[in-house]
Amino acid sequence: MLHITPQDLRESMIPAIENQMHQIMTMANEPELEPFYSMMAYHLGWEGKGAGPEARGKRFRPLLLLLTCVSAGGGWEKALPAAAAVELLHNFSLIHDDIQDNSPLRRGRETVWKIWGIPQAINAGDAMLTLAHLAMLNLENTVTSDILTTAVRLLQQTCLKLTKGQYLDMTFEKCAQVTLEEYWQMVEGKTAALISVCAELGALIAGASESVCQYYKDFGHFLGLAFQAQDDLLGIWGDAAITGKSNESDLVSGKKTLPVLYGVSQEGEFSKRWLLGNIRPAEVHQIAAQLENEGGLAFTRQETERLTKLALDSFYQAEPQEPAKGLLIDIAEKLLHRNG
Amino acid sequence: MLHITPQDLRESMIPAIENQMHQIMTMANEPELEPFYSMMAYHLGWEGKGAGPEARGKRFRPLLLLLTCVSAGGGWEKALPAAAAVELLHNFSLIHDDIQDNSPLRRGRETVWKIWGIPQAINAGDAMLTLAHLAMLNLENTVTSDILTTAVRLLQQTCLKLTKGQYLDMTFEKCAQVTLEEYWQMVEGKTAALISVCAELGALIAGASESVCQYYKDFGHFLGLAFQAQDDLLGIWGDAAITGKSNESDLVSGKKTLPVLYGVSQEGEFSKRWLLGNIRPAEVHQIAAQLENEGGLAFTRQETERLTKLALDSFYQAEPQEPAKGLLIDIAEKLLHRNG
Repeated sequence: MLHITPQDLRESMIPAIENQMHQIMTMANEPELEPFYSMMAYHLGWEGKGAGPEARGKRFRPLLLLLTCVSAGGGWEKALPAAAAVELLHNFSLIHDDIQDNSPLRRGRETVWKIWGIPQAINAGDAMLTLAHLAMLNLENTVTSDILTTAVRLLQQTCLKLTKGQYLDMTFEKCAQVTLEEYWQMVEGKTAALISVCAELGALIAGASESVCQYYKDFGHFLGLAFQAQDDLLGIWGDAAITGKSNESDLVSGKKTLPVLYGVSQEGEFSKRWLLGNIRPAEVHQIAAQLENEGGLAFTRQETERLTKLALDSFYQAEPQEPAKGLLIDIAEKLLHRNG
Repeated sequence: MLHITPQDLRESMIPAIENQMHQIMTMANEPELEPFYSMMAYHLGWEGKGAGPEARGKRFRPLLLLLTCVSAGGGWEKALPAAAAVELLHNFSLIHDDIQDNSPLRRGRETVWKIWGIPQAINAGDAMLTLAHLAMLNLENTVTSDILTTAVRLLQQTCLKLTKGQYLDMTFEKCAQVTLEEYWQMVEGKTAALISVCAELGALIAGASESVCQYYKDFGHFLGLAFQAQDDLLGIWGDAAITGKSNESDLVSGKKTLPVLYGVSQEGEFSKRWLLGNIRPAEVHQIAAQLENEGGLAFTRQETERLTKLALDSFYQAEPQEPAKGLLIDIAEKLLHRNG
């Protein structure tokens, strides 16, 4: 193999993912259906006010999929249909999520339902979900029919897990008590299942053995759980939650995240205040400090580290190949040390 | 073959379809996810207040699929996964439709969103859509991998057409003018695409040639258009719209259906009143009579007959086999002559 730097690899993948997504999206682009297409293109950060790289997110999931494919010894180009599929699936879930959470903004831009209304936004999400699965079917040109069927089924199963996780998440909002076990079950469905299947699909498409696919799957699973734990940490002690924008703190929204569940289980001062509800932005600093004193921050940090270690353990067992190996480790470590 | 009466055939199919759907739905039935499963089981008419055959609808689409399979020379049992898939897909679209239309009732029962709220109903619809596609994958056990891939793709493409039709339907509500051409494009996506793919899938799974599959596909396409035209007719001159429940008339809801579009194009008295909007239940009788006088009823009836004839022309070209042939003709004729 030629010398490919990790940076070269990443920089050739990003536009190829975007290009693959554009190809699929043409299936929804007809002159009479212009706003239908535009709602989706807007959400993907391609069109409308504020369009551009900032609005697109990091395309973390398709990158993970392509890198895993290379790491497991495959050519990443043949995994592009699956990469487009997972990113479209992720974006479908965001469109519906924003309606369900009543969120007016995503990445600093108005959400689809806010601009086009709930009925059209539900439909745009349904269409994007369908386009995700249609994208996956383009693997027909690059893999065997057995691998194709497995990949199609894996994505559908992941989608079912997403809806289960979403159900639990919405139900928890209205529950007085949520156990840590229930919390992890929700995160497994809502966050980890899709990240896990990205790694699994990459290995599958590379033609890896069942055991190697399983190692990558577990890698993605633990990475997804660690990702969520870190997200929960940032929701209380991250830059946005602490500096200035106290109204963005998860303490204000009342979300039952990992540090909160830990804090409640301690039955101390934090728990007392939390159970009264309605935390105001002005109190956020003090309550976050209280939760930190009672061990909520340390516990969450430990969990993130424990889960990242489990992810990497599984990753090494898969005997990953350079240069993708280094990039995947980078990704895992950046997840752990990000600030926002 | 033994003597199977059409009635025998139909009566063995209905419970088999229900059974197949139950099998798939177990994938969403876990103790911790009880209400998640129940929302879907309720919508399917299996659980909750008013559950029972009346709440289930006619299961017309899966029956059409199984009968087409037999009619094209196949064994219907092997098409059961596809039959469950189309019925689940249809029901997914109803769950989301009811939210989009703000409908509190379906088949005399409260809708899913009305009971569990919009966020959970969106999610239940997403899950049912996913279960539809997972159902289709069970064809793996009964057909070749080529037919499997084709069937999976056909269902996804149909789903994309559904979202396009839905987009147009919601957009038309806010348009001053809709042409007949635009109307038929909407109906093709929203109604005919799914009915068409039922017939096509039946023939495909039977192992029919491409040309025979195409005949069945066209049969379903025209049947779907005829079905909608008749639905539109009943929405103004049907029993429910005329006798007593004038508030259920499409004239009151302001829907731009086929007879209305015809009436508007005549630029007569009906058109004048229609364009003023806000038709009250008390006026429904008189305005329906006006539209009838101006040819709206006759035009719609002619269209239904013309389309049904096109459907049957295509059907006969497929050289359908008894006893399914007779049942399928029955279905087509009942569609044309139904009153509600």
